[in-house]
Amino acid sequence: MFIHHVFFTLKNPDSAADKQALIEGLNAMRPIKEIRTIHIGVPASTDREVIDRSYAVSWLLVFDNLEDQDVYQVHPLHKKFVETCSHLWSKVVVYDSVNA
Amino acid sequence: MFIHHVFFTLKNPDSAADKQALIEGLNAMRPIKEIRTIHIGVPASTDREVIDRSYAVSWLLVFDNLEDQDVYQVHPLHKKFVETCSHLWSKVVVYDSVNA
Repeated sequence: MFIHHVFFTLKNPDSAADKQALIEGLNAMRPIKEIRTIHIGVPASTDREVIDRSYAVSWLLVFDNLEDQDVYQVHPLHKKFVETCSHLWSKVVVYDSVNA
Repeated sequence: MFIHHVFFTLKNPDSAADKQALIEGLNAMRPIKEIRTIHIGVPASTDREVIDRSYAVSWLLVFDNLEDQDVYQVHPLHKKFVETCSHLWSKVVVYDSVNA
């Protein structure tokens, strides 16, 4: 199992339109067949010192393995997402994890 | 859906024993019935500028909702984990996300 978790910070954090455009861009990648599970998120209401709530939108993907994640990285729908949406974010943090 | 993703940095990053003890401590929480999905991870081999590989172990939980996550936070098995394992880590970063 390969977990790919991305946290996007918006260039315009107060723009609901930009946030919506980013979420729509993420949704457009749903047909990528190598993806097993998708979760598009926003920060929960939980708010303790250890919790990072600085992002606007999260993108959690589960793949069967690294190879499928590699296919996703160069997939035309992923490339199109970066082309059409990268102007929306100021920062991206990615965590890639495999079974311990 | 409520996503709870924790990234642990070890006090002794080079200690395989400490890493194993942490993983065993996490595994001991598997019986908590409010948890829908568990993934215990380590950094993948992917290594781009945006990827944070600074953690030793990741702990991804999926709950049905915030209420179930709240039960987990105060569950005896979770409290026991913190008691027995918190000396192992120097830093914890948590991302809690709900459906966008």
